[in-house]
Amino acid sequence: MPSVPETMIAIEITTPGGPEVLKPARVPTPRPGPGQILVKVAAAGVNRPDLMQRAGSYPPPPGHSALPGLEIAGEVAEVGQGVTRWKLGDKVCALVNGGGYAEYALAEEPIALPVPANFDMVHAGAVPETFFTVWNNVFERGRLTAGEWLLVHGGTSGIGTTAIGLAKALGANVIATAGSAEKLKACLELGADRAVNYRTEDFVAAAREATGGKGVDVTLDMVGGAYTERNIAAAAEDGRIVQIAVLGGAEVKINIARLMMKRLTLTGSTLRPRTRAAKAGFARAIEAQVWPLLTAGKVKVVVDSTFALAKAADAHRRLESGGHIGKVVLIA
Amino acid sequence: MPSVPETMIAIEITTPGGPEVLKPARVPTPRPGPGQILVKVAAAGVNRPDLMQRAGSYPPPPGHSALPGLEIAGEVAEVGQGVTRWKLGDKVCALVNGGGYAEYALAEEPIALPVPANFDMVHAGAVPETFFTVWNNVFERGRLTAGEWLLVHGGTSGIGTTAIGLAKALGANVIATAGSAEKLKACLELGADRAVNYRTEDFVAAAREATGGKGVDVTLDMVGGAYTERNIAAAAEDGRIVQIAVLGGAEVKINIARLMMKRLTLTGSTLRPRTRAAKAGFARAIEAQVWPLLTAGKVKVVVDSTFALAKAADAHRRLESGGHIGKVVLIA
Repeated sequence: MPSVPETMIAIEITTPGGPEVLKPARVPTPRPGPGQILVKVAAAGVNRPDLMQRAGSYPPPPGHSALPGLEIAGEVAEVGQGVTRWKLGDKVCALVNGGGYAEYALAEEPIALPVPANFDMVHAGAVPETFFTVWNNVFERGRLTAGEWLLVHGGTSGIGTTAIGLAKALGANVIATAGSAEKLKACLELGADRAVNYRTEDFVAAAREATGGKGVDVTLDMVGGAYTERNIAAAAEDGRIVQIAVLGGAEVKINIARLMMKRLTLTGSTLRPRTRAAKAGFARAIEAQVWPLLTAGKVKVVVDSTFALAKAADAHRRLESGGHIGKVVLIA
Repeated sequence: MPSVPETMIAIEITTPGGPEVLKPARVPTPRPGPGQILVKVAAAGVNRPDLMQRAGSYPPPPGHSALPGLEIAGEVAEVGQGVTRWKLGDKVCALVNGGGYAEYALAEEPIALPVPANFDMVHAGAVPETFFTVWNNVFERGRLTAGEWLLVHGGTSGIGTTAIGLAKALGANVIATAGSAEKLKACLELGADRAVNYRTEDFVAAAREATGGKGVDVTLDMVGGAYTERNIAAAAEDGRIVQIAVLGGAEVKINIARLMMKRLTLTGSTLRPRTRAAKAGFARAIEAQVWPLLTAGKVKVVVDSTFALAKAADAHRRLESGGHIGKVVLIA
């Protein structure tokens, strides 16, 4: 393996704004501190929080890189003090504290995972952000179990495709919403039991019908706004509604008596500000529970499109167009 | 023990309305079915749901008695088929499916508990409804643990006094809200670490101050309305807000992004419609965890006032006046 160069190409957010503010720049290559590894990035996933960060509405937590990019796959190029699990040349994928849109990126030792057997780098780089998010929110926070019903909005987003695949592989039933015939078809091909066109159908009625009137046990929602009260209406007794974004608005009106009478749980989380220890905990659970499903091909990682690192702006345009099905990935 | 008479005096809701619609009437004494016991009532607790039932806004679940009264203490007067735990003359207290305001009331075998040692019947009859509610909502649903902070609204209500006592006995810290100097004093005497006059102080600011800026871990709320958003503001990261009534209104506005960023849980429940099996489960947990605290005098049951059964209307007036501290109990 060649030695690590002093400088590298990374994508900078030159000023808050549209995709055009993403520009390649030559910057110093970061060096791993204690407990960190430096990864020569082969692929970096593009995620919705990256768009918000680019627009200036989601500043990185203190201590995180100002460069965009929350997940990578590549080879270990340097190991920091005290690192025991990884050695030079190991193929890893990792959730990272920013800086993924670059030729090299730092990862924390316990938040990196081995590239799953039979995975190429593009698919491995598309795994961490959505699998950490779905695992923690649907299975830990939402406690979805086999035989229960999951309602996932945005069924063809990176989060949506991951939630459908993982929930089905773990024995749950899935209702997914999406906005076009092509996307509904994709949801069903991924295993969803019912796909609902939110433009023409009422997902509350569809959820009731699909569950024999009972309602859904877990809802994964990134919309909020007017959806929240409808999520409550669609929920079964003892149902859990997990909020991971508020694309439809943060201010919501709900009937809290209805929430109380059905004994619902309305909760949510964001991944980025979690501590190193929390993310390491998710990584261990995912490695034990999810990695076997990935290596056995029981859960598919859906990649919509790839773009060269220097074309990060086009990757953002693709995600913002809403036309994608699955993940958008940069190739470094 | 004398044999059970064919008829008894019970309080009927003659028509939906004010306290005056509660009238003593001679009705057939109920007979225990399989798995039930008949209790000669010595004392019957008065609870807020009774007021709502009387007003016509909280009809009994299917299969429950139309007579008011959700908790009793007394002696077993008859046992139904298959009952093994209880025998004639046993002193019990129980959560009941209505019909508590009467000389005799039916209880389900597993939802009756022995009168705690050293308890008189009045105090025993004041236990079930609030202890089942607080146990399930604060400790099971809300997962309050030793060292955490509980915020309880209505600190001098039956629910409030129970929550303060139980939380303190189990090692938590408590902030209670109330509306007068006398009530604040009562909250502090019950062990609350901080009492907040909601008429003159902002409970959000008080909660932040009391917790060193961190916020509260569990909130027990019976208000809803404008309180819900303030409960969210007062909560610590990973906090749980548990709704058990909506005296301030069911329609609430919240910022769901704030809920998500703090990883809060907004949940709630009502006790009355729960299944026999669910209530039996609460009873077993309470007998194991709470009964030792009651018999040892580590948690006090606060009785505000007692009324003769025939004066049930006055008991309702007392509860509706809001002047009470602790429980209002009928003596049969």
